[in-house]
Amino acid sequence: MNIDLIRAAARRLEGHVRHTPLLSSPFLDDIAGKRVLVKPECLQHTGSFKFRGGWSAVSALDPDIRKRGVIAFSSGNHAQGVAMAAAAHGVPAVIIMPADAPRMKIDNTRALGAEVVLYDRAGGESREDIGQKYSEARQLTLIKPYDDPQVIAGQGTTGLEIAAQARAEGVETADVLVCCGGGGLTSGIALALEADAPDLRARPCEPQGFDDTTRSLASGKIERNTTLSGGICDAIVTPEPGKLTFPILSRLCGPGIVVTEDQALDAMALAFSRLKIVVEPGGAVALAAALFHSQETKGDAVIAVCTGGNVDPDMFKTALNRTS
Amino acid sequence: MNIDLIRAAARRLEGHVRHTPLLSSPFLDDIAGKRVLVKPECLQHTGSFKFRGGWSAVSALDPDIRKRGVIAFSSGNHAQGVAMAAAAHGVPAVIIMPADAPRMKIDNTRALGAEVVLYDRAGGESREDIGQKYSEARQLTLIKPYDDPQVIAGQGTTGLEIAAQARAEGVETADVLVCCGGGGLTSGIALALEADAPDLRARPCEPQGFDDTTRSLASGKIERNTTLSGGICDAIVTPEPGKLTFPILSRLCGPGIVVTEDQALDAMALAFSRLKIVVEPGGAVALAAALFHSQETKGDAVIAVCTGGNVDPDMFKTALNRTS
Repeated sequence: MNIDLIRAAARRLEGHVRHTPLLSSPFLDDIAGKRVLVKPECLQHTGSFKFRGGWSAVSALDPDIRKRGVIAFSSGNHAQGVAMAAAAHGVPAVIIMPADAPRMKIDNTRALGAEVVLYDRAGGESREDIGQKYSEARQLTLIKPYDDPQVIAGQGTTGLEIAAQARAEGVETADVLVCCGGGGLTSGIALALEADAPDLRARPCEPQGFDDTTRSLASGKIERNTTLSGGICDAIVTPEPGKLTFPILSRLCGPGIVVTEDQALDAMALAFSRLKIVVEPGGAVALAAALFHSQETKGDAVIAVCTGGNVDPDMFKTALNRTS
Repeated sequence: MNIDLIRAAARRLEGHVRHTPLLSSPFLDDIAGKRVLVKPECLQHTGSFKFRGGWSAVSALDPDIRKRGVIAFSSGNHAQGVAMAAAAHGVPAVIIMPADAPRMKIDNTRALGAEVVLYDRAGGESREDIGQKYSEARQLTLIKPYDDPQVIAGQGTTGLEIAAQARAEGVETADVLVCCGGGGLTSGIALALEADAPDLRARPCEPQGFDDTTRSLASGKIERNTTLSGGICDAIVTPEPGKLTFPILSRLCGPGIVVTEDQALDAMALAFSRLKIVVEPGGAVALAAALFHSQETKGDAVIAVCTGGNVDPDMFKTALNRTS
């Protein structure tokens, strides 16, 4: 896993990925006590950065292998990213999703042309086992959500854009806060920043109770979450950091930042009122860290990646109700 | 009023304006029955395109005149655009606002450093008269919301961006739908398209009951709205098309498109779920026309400008409630 894979992914993504802008608001700067720049990947195709990794992985396959189809397991955003990338390449996609994933994510994945297989997240069977079974029966290529070099490379293109955009904004030294599940986006961004903006430092952000990466970075070895359900930040809940991603996170990232669910909801409401973007709870964790934990960050500015916006209206209203 | 003024405004705005992307979703294409491209000016500084005109006008002033300050009358978006532009230039701003404007717009305008003067929109005194009074007493320069060449030039920079972005997307012939109040944005975009993309045609979009521009274009002379209050699309309610803007609209634009308030609310909900952007009712009128009146448009694609996102949480929840 290296910067050349990320640059190659950027070339394959060109013309297909959306280059998201950097947003800002003086009202957010006031809250954080420093300049806040937001990379709204909720505006990416399919409503999250996962389209980058999906496209990168599908486009990297040998055409003869790709045409048999791909398979992915995902609580929703990776599912949609892979489904749309597969459809654009004209190949079938099977997506294994937890039955308790937000309805909108399940519906969207089906509408994007994928065959959706639901499983019980609280039950005994791991999604990895189910995925393996389908993959073998139909000769589908498994596209993992984060522990795959081409997926990490695709997510890392976000970091290439941030490096160039931060320079254009005159930001030299800053923490780049990233909502972190398995660490695909965080490690990809960390590698891109190491190459193109070494004074920007990636930092994983997680919700309280699901802070496996923060604890793993602190202890120096992979730590697991004790539970995988019950939180509102479903998009970034994974059992533990990935085997490919954790060494990269350990080498390059600053300490993790942990926020409460209430802080994530408040960040959603502020993204609504100040940036005019729709962010899901898991996608608002880094913005919550930027706004409410800025004393834990270094530099005159802080950059936060809002990773996704696939949120049901009821959950969004819960966030809005905190402001009115 | 000509294209050279718009190109000069683009040079003054460079580095200060946000270049908003073009967004899209296959789900919106399905509703319209053709490709839909959305220019989200809700993501512009201050949450609406009005920042462009405000910056253009303030930056065009002679420094000795500018330092005395500026004054504007506005239901909210022009107010914020002028307030932020004045603050960035280090000069005072007085803003005359209707007392029934959304609270968020009044609060934001004050927070951006402007002195806000409220007036009764239903009463007898015109905002123009009040503005004139302040302007004379304090030697402030009045920045009109649309009938000012430098304001039209600033708004027209949106059209320069649309022309280049449509070309990059392979769109040659299309209607460009614009939420229309006094016609500053619509006429500016029309002039920019005439120069840079003559096969793209600007079309004003209005809410039912406040369709002065549509009726004026149909009759060939300026027609007034019979009422100025009671609607939810406050951002684009003006008495009649402007004296500078109407001749441009007449010469260059296609017929107006009128949508219902319910269609504007549905467009807000779809912008939430499919584009992850926050749009106010008046800013969603063009998207509503693209989605629900596409049979009135020409070309294989339709481009809609979402002009603003300064909406109170309660109104936004009203839109979300239509989907759940």
